[in-house]
Amino acid sequence: MERDSVVNPYEVKGNIDYEEIAKRFGVNLIDEALKERIKRLAGGELHFMIRRGIYYAQRDMNWLLDEYEKGNKFYLYTGIGPSGTMTLGHLIPFALTQWFQEKFDAEVYIQIPDEEKFLVKKKSDLTLEKTHELAYDDVANIIAMGFKKGKTKIFLDTEYAKTLYKNAVRVSRGITFSMIKDAFGFTVEDNIGKIFYTSMQAVPAFLMSVEKGKNIPCLIPLAIDQDVHFRIARDSIAKLGYYKPASIQSKFLPGLSGKPKMSASDPSDTLYLNDDDETVRKKVFKAFTGQQPTAELQKKHGGNPEICTVCQYYRFFFEDDDTRLKKIFDAERSGSILAGEHKQDLYERITKYLAGQRQKKEKALERMDDFIVRD
Amino acid sequence: MERDSVVNPYEVKGNIDYEEIAKRFGVNLIDEALKERIKRLAGGELHFMIRRGIYYAQRDMNWLLDEYEKGNKFYLYTGIGPSGTMTLGHLIPFALTQWFQEKFDAEVYIQIPDEEKFLVKKKSDLTLEKTHELAYDDVANIIAMGFKKGKTKIFLDTEYAKTLYKNAVRVSRGITFSMIKDAFGFTVEDNIGKIFYTSMQAVPAFLMSVEKGKNIPCLIPLAIDQDVHFRIARDSIAKLGYYKPASIQSKFLPGLSGKPKMSASDPSDTLYLNDDDETVRKKVFKAFTGQQPTAELQKKHGGNPEICTVCQYYRFFFEDDDTRLKKIFDAERSGSILAGEHKQDLYERITKYLAGQRQKKEKALERMDDFIVRD
Repeated sequence: MERDSVVNPYEVKGNIDYEEIAKRFGVNLIDEALKERIKRLAGGELHFMIRRGIYYAQRDMNWLLDEYEKGNKFYLYTGIGPSGTMTLGHLIPFALTQWFQEKFDAEVYIQIPDEEKFLVKKKSDLTLEKTHELAYDDVANIIAMGFKKGKTKIFLDTEYAKTLYKNAVRVSRGITFSMIKDAFGFTVEDNIGKIFYTSMQAVPAFLMSVEKGKNIPCLIPLAIDQDVHFRIARDSIAKLGYYKPASIQSKFLPGLSGKPKMSASDPSDTLYLNDDDETVRKKVFKAFTGQQPTAELQKKHGGNPEICTVCQYYRFFFEDDDTRLKKIFDAERSGSILAGEHKQDLYERITKYLAGQRQKKEKALERMDDFIVRD
Repeated sequence: MERDSVVNPYEVKGNIDYEEIAKRFGVNLIDEALKERIKRLAGGELHFMIRRGIYYAQRDMNWLLDEYEKGNKFYLYTGIGPSGTMTLGHLIPFALTQWFQEKFDAEVYIQIPDEEKFLVKKKSDLTLEKTHELAYDDVANIIAMGFKKGKTKIFLDTEYAKTLYKNAVRVSRGITFSMIKDAFGFTVEDNIGKIFYTSMQAVPAFLMSVEKGKNIPCLIPLAIDQDVHFRIARDSIAKLGYYKPASIQSKFLPGLSGKPKMSASDPSDTLYLNDDDETVRKKVFKAFTGQQPTAELQKKHGGNPEICTVCQYYRFFFEDDDTRLKKIFDAERSGSILAGEHKQDLYERITKYLAGQRQKKEKALERMDDFIVRD
């Protein structure tokens, strides 16, 4: 079968057809009934990222909620592999995880695999010391998202390997190189640390069950490109006697250039959490909108909010009110708003958001040990 | 090139031509000059296993001794992957390591990779809990060999993974699947834990240098089938800026059936350290000697001590005096000793040795924490 896109944790390219990817990966689209069910169980509210289909696919969510309704509470697991300053896109899984924690009073495991990018990236300046340092910066940003102390464990792989490695070994026994090589785009020339790594990422999906000595359902919010780790590990986890994890998959935050996925390694395409106001201004004003070449033509023909980065950033992050979002989209479509004004407004929202995040991060730096667990 | 033997940590089969294997693996035969040098630096004595060519090959031993003479002391590293009760053959690396420790006042690292056989063996009854339990039994047997408290660190992989994993990750970055698959006899259908494992085994070969923050030479006594781990890791270790380890390779203790390598998984071929006297008697009296079919013929034609298990067990373990060993070999060759008498004598030596080992092991059980390090 010919495919025009590659979507795995180490490469995303081509035209992204999210429905086709869901089919390819064997995940289910989130339907209205499931949205209603989550909303009801969350106490009447639904996170805008689910409402708007930014989270668009899932595995075993209905089973997870069945268990929840039987009184069998779930825990959440998500994470980030440090490779540089966190971007806006990186916050998507943490935003939803934090929401689930709040609404379902759930415990959260957050893995910071500080070896992953060291193993995966070709460039040798990303040392293990560097990823370790970046990991701590990520942790501060994550705590700043509002996770609950006492209900949230954050761990770096290099600091928690005594716990993780022996369970990774157990799950690795059911995963062959043949099972992973196409799924991850690996060849025999890839290093054996990178080949093994998926076992480490699988562990937190059943770790709480190991620790409690009984099966606890697990829900993993993640971007769709990360799905392969758990798709591969599911059967091996089940063979060990644990529940297969449930998961909920998001689309990608588009890059500022209009690319379907913001690339953390391309500064011009990306908003970093530590970008200062001037940098944000420059980036936002250069962002792709797909508007007509002149103001006159834009007023006459309007633009397309579906491909307009500015509109999409409101949708993903900066406007959680659907009515107001509709107004923004309508204005773009009708041509009643021009790029300059549109961008000025977004720029203000972003800088305000980032300033708030940075302030919370400063406070988080003093609370790191309330969250980090080490062997 | 057609080879009639397979020699790697996970399979030994075919006719073993030790010189050919040394050539194939790129290790050097131990010559008389090196024997003399080791003897001189050891204070005038040479361990009988080196003297007799049981340890027959080496890598970088002259470099190691150059460093030693410059005042740059080496440490030793050896280990065992628990899979069942230890056998006599398993003691060979520990015997030489202990000797080097004593003669060169060297520190010793002993790795007990309790995940290895769990990953490698197809049979699922060898759980990680079981290998962990076996590991402790191995540790007691190892301490009983006479290692020095305060100069010997013993660690299980599952208990020391915080230290080991992050260094395994570093060394794994320079090892591709393509580099290991033929060397270990792996295919794409092998599990990814097994594929990664060699990185864990490589770590203690440079761990002391990591810990001390400066390069310390390392000497690894090991059976020739284990060589591949270090052959593969050498370049990656060097790329990290550490010395490549020196090593000294032994031949295999033959099986009781006359097979070139005692098989730990075939009880009838193997002497276990916990075999009781009656079991030893039965096994020894069934052992292959290659003697003539009748006493009369044996007296007339004599036997061949090179293929006689009884003679070989004296050579490997139970007669460290060369003059007395020569008498045993001569008697076998001339036919002046018959199998029964020969075996009765060996049986007595073995049971005495095993009783001593068990007694020392009992004492070792009380001293485990003097040796075991954990994260």
